[in-house]
Amino acid sequence: MNIRLGDLVTRLGGELVGDAGLEIDGIAPLDSAGSRQVSFLSNRKLREQARNSRAAALALSPADSEALGPDYAGARVLTPNPYAWFARAAQHFVALSAPPPVPGIHPSASIAPSARIASSACIGAHVTIEAEAEVGKHCVLDPGCFVGQGARIGAGSHFFANVTFHARCEIGERGIVHSGAVIGSDGFGFANEKGAWVKIPQTGRVMIGNDVQVGANTSIDRGALEDTIIEDGVKLDNQIQIAHNCHIGAHTAMAGCVGVAGSAKIGKYCTFGGAAMVLGHLSIADHVHISSGSMVSRSIREPGQYTGFYPLAKNADWEKTAAIVRNLDSMRDKLKELEKELKALKDGNKRNVD
Amino acid sequence: MNIRLGDLVTRLGGELVGDAGLEIDGIAPLDSAGSRQVSFLSNRKLREQARNSRAAALALSPADSEALGPDYAGARVLTPNPYAWFARAAQHFVALSAPPPVPGIHPSASIAPSARIASSACIGAHVTIEAEAEVGKHCVLDPGCFVGQGARIGAGSHFFANVTFHARCEIGERGIVHSGAVIGSDGFGFANEKGAWVKIPQTGRVMIGNDVQVGANTSIDRGALEDTIIEDGVKLDNQIQIAHNCHIGAHTAMAGCVGVAGSAKIGKYCTFGGAAMVLGHLSIADHVHISSGSMVSRSIREPGQYTGFYPLAKNADWEKTAAIVRNLDSMRDKLKELEKELKALKDGNKRNVD
Amino acid sequence: MNIRLGDLVTRLGGELVGDAGLEIDGIAPLDSAGSRQVSFLSNRKLREQARNSRAAALALSPADSEALGPDYAGARVLTPNPYAWFARAAQHFVALSAPPPVPGIHPSASIAPSARIASSACIGAHVTIEAEAEVGKHCVLDPGCFVGQGARIGAGSHFFANVTFHARCEIGERGIVHSGAVIGSDGFGFANEKGAWVKIPQTGRVMIGNDVQVGANTSIDRGALEDTIIEDGVKLDNQIQIAHNCHIGAHTAMAGCVGVAGSAKIGKYCTFGGAAMVLGHLSIADHVHISSGSMVSRSIREPGQYTGFYPLAKNADWEKTAAIVRNLDSMRDKLKELEKELKALKDGNKRNVD
Repeated sequence: MNIRLGDLVTRLGGELVGDAGLEIDGIAPLDSAGSRQVSFLSNRKLREQARNSRAAALALSPADSEALGPDYAGARVLTPNPYAWFARAAQHFVALSAPPPVPGIHPSASIAPSARIASSACIGAHVTIEAEAEVGKHCVLDPGCFVGQGARIGAGSHFFANVTFHARCEIGERGIVHSGAVIGSDGFGFANEKGAWVKIPQTGRVMIGNDVQVGANTSIDRGALEDTIIEDGVKLDNQIQIAHNCHIGAHTAMAGCVGVAGSAKIGKYCTFGGAAMVLGHLSIADHVHISSGSMVSRSIREPGQYTGFYPLAKNADWEKTAAIVRNLDSMRDKLKELEKELKALKDGNKRNVD
Repeated sequence: MNIRLGDLVTRLGGELVGDAGLEIDGIAPLDSAGSRQVSFLSNRKLREQARNSRAAALALSPADSEALGPDYAGARVLTPNPYAWFARAAQHFVALSAPPPVPGIHPSASIAPSARIASSACIGAHVTIEAEAEVGKHCVLDPGCFVGQGARIGAGSHFFANVTFHARCEIGERGIVHSGAVIGSDGFGFANEKGAWVKIPQTGRVMIGNDVQVGANTSIDRGALEDTIIEDGVKLDNQIQIAHNCHIGAHTAMAGCVGVAGSAKIGKYCTFGGAAMVLGHLSIADHVHISSGSMVSRSIREPGQYTGFYPLAKNADWEKTAAIVRNLDSMRDKLKELEKELKALKDGNKRNVD
Repeated sequence: MNIRLGDLVTRLGGELVGDAGLEIDGIAPLDSAGSRQVSFLSNRKLREQARNSRAAALALSPADSEALGPDYAGARVLTPNPYAWFARAAQHFVALSAPPPVPGIHPSASIAPSARIASSACIGAHVTIEAEAEVGKHCVLDPGCFVGQGARIGAGSHFFANVTFHARCEIGERGIVHSGAVIGSDGFGFANEKGAWVKIPQTGRVMIGNDVQVGANTSIDRGALEDTIIEDGVKLDNQIQIAHNCHIGAHTAMAGCVGVAGSAKIGKYCTFGGAAMVLGHLSIADHVHISSGSMVSRSIREPGQYTGFYPLAKNADWEKTAAIVRNLDSMRDKLKELEKELKALKDGNKRNVD
């Protein structure tokens, strides 16, 4: 499936410098792109590679285009964000090559009579949709998904196979939920009574905005009384745990294996590296970036990058340093003592000299 | 659905001070509770809020009731544990508002003829129950659950959608298993032979007591030869991994993302913060509390709170301290050397002075 | 089900010393094995136990056999790797006792007409297999599994209940995939545009070799453009996250809760302890062993054992040492200052003495 370069630029934006009539059939990396493919340059270290690229066209910034000079002979698409342009081009070609899902409900699906399913939606085999649930236009629910009572799924959302989306939870438009994700499980709330735990019913919901992606085997708990909230544009990777009553601000992204404890309030435009952990009842400001493997144990009020993991070493070296870490207070005490003794010695010398 | 306050107290315990005839229709927080709702006070910092509460009734301790004085005008339920009382009240009102599940087996479920399903159980769509499995009275198995051959599920247990419960495993009464949980997967056992791994069949079971909750996407492996054991009242949050042959004592609670390696023996009444990790073949005493993000790398014989995670810092600060941590032994050596030099100097001075 | 000891040794290898006609019906630990069971000795600390074992036969090394002397009266199977021999014996007895799965497709399964399913395969209830997918000879797909379009499953593989195996992914022969595992979910790839995230389609696959085991609730993402690759003999435990474009070398084993970020290249014969984490775009050499709970934040070029986690302590002690860690640079500065002062003092003394 081809598209003329000019039509592609019209669709995706950018300023075309070169032949609008070139037929393009796909995307490729700089070094392997051929005469019918577009590539992109977003890292100035790759300029030399771009000069030698045989791509039909390159998406790049005006500055990089100037730096490239005339060596690169193909067409150019000038754009301030070539990587985002490339992402959209890739989306375009994937959509061209994938057959659109055929609307309809698989005969093996189990749909409650009171569920409201858009006629343009596509419901796969062995799906269950319970009473009063709503599935919007052009939604795709792959085989084995479960949608609980009164849940609502916005237009254009896609649930991959074996997603569990519990009662009364909501997700906005263009959501993507990957396989094994569980949204709306009970929060972990118990009152302790003489050592045993009395369950506190979890009656809140999970409310998810538009353009949110939830990764494979990720869990998001419903709130205890109020709701767990995931704002627009949030991207969650795989194996993530979001506890009850969390609030995650718009466009925040979390890599795999992150855990967020209950009632944490996380700002907008944050990023979390893999396996970062956030304790409960904390607040994290907008534009905070947490490094992988770091434990956030207090609120963060200033934007910036924060880190906290023990540095890796050969095991024998770690054994040594870990033993010292365990006794750092005795090392500090010794240092203080030395300081005192040294001062005493200096004072003594001074008296001697005086 | 209402209940008279007197009837509620008869049902849940506590000493009623006030009008037994008040009609109550739900629970609410101190600040938003109205004239038909009960609230609770369990934190002395909230006494002022309690004084001003418009709740129909408050559950609180006798001491707090005295401290409150006459400012609070509603009824009072005196109880030593107001939070647990509140949890039970919440359970009561949730049960009132939720329609009881209708017993029966969904026509799409696949049930082996030799499975024994109580007639009061409720089996959802696309459930599979294999030969010789037993499902007790009033159990609810939501859509997509799998119950393996010879497995046993005690009375009143609830499996949310898409739970996998493997062959010969057992769970007691009133168990709650959340979506995506896998109970009875093979333990990770291999013999190494010239670098390659030879699988050791895992023939033990997972044996779970009464009143246990298992979180979403949590995995509990079956034992290798003997069983993995989860005692009564254990509460496991989401995304937890319990390896083969573990033994978890009664009423121990683990927050999300905890991992417990094989053959660890954990006591009763312990708590584990999120993402805490326990190495294999360790013993942990009763009443041990592990902080979030901490790695338990040795047995713990004394009750108490234990912690071990690297403190978070601004990334630039972490870079500095991490570099020092890596070289702590050279710092320690320098300190020893200074100590020696200082001693030599003092001894020299002493000789000079003498 | 019995087997003559001689036949067992013929099947599994080793040198038999003793009565080939003994009837064996199972395996057992040294201390509980009886006159119809085999056991093994692979740990020299257990020699005394072995001397007193009533096992019909013992698998052990020639050196251990010599050390045992005549006290142990049963038959012996001499082999350089008794643990692997025992693992194979255990496999044999499990296979004897388990009825072979009956080939065929459960009537509730949803199979695309163009899927190619071997007639010896066994497809369980509520399974979905999409167009052009291939399922090899003697495969077993337990209830609730999903196999996407064009996916390929090699001969003798076993998917436990509720596995999700996405479009175009491949697994070789004798694969074992546990419940809740998701293979082929989208990699976590986005271009940032003014703070928001533009999805980069993930068009690569997951390509898995022969004899691979994937644990419960583990996720393996498909590659962005190229493939995610898991080589022969890799063993992955539960709750693991493998991000897009990773390459895991043959016979590497990872314990539960490990996370590997995108494009990491991991060598052969490596082992990863539980909850170890690997940052993206790193290379790890063959024969590298990472301890549990350790964060790999740089490439590792030399074989060996590497560790990096904060040592556990009583909480009060941790509070002390963590406060010092946070301020290690001031401690280092003080140490430098002391060094300087001491030197000045010594130089002064020297001048005084001179």
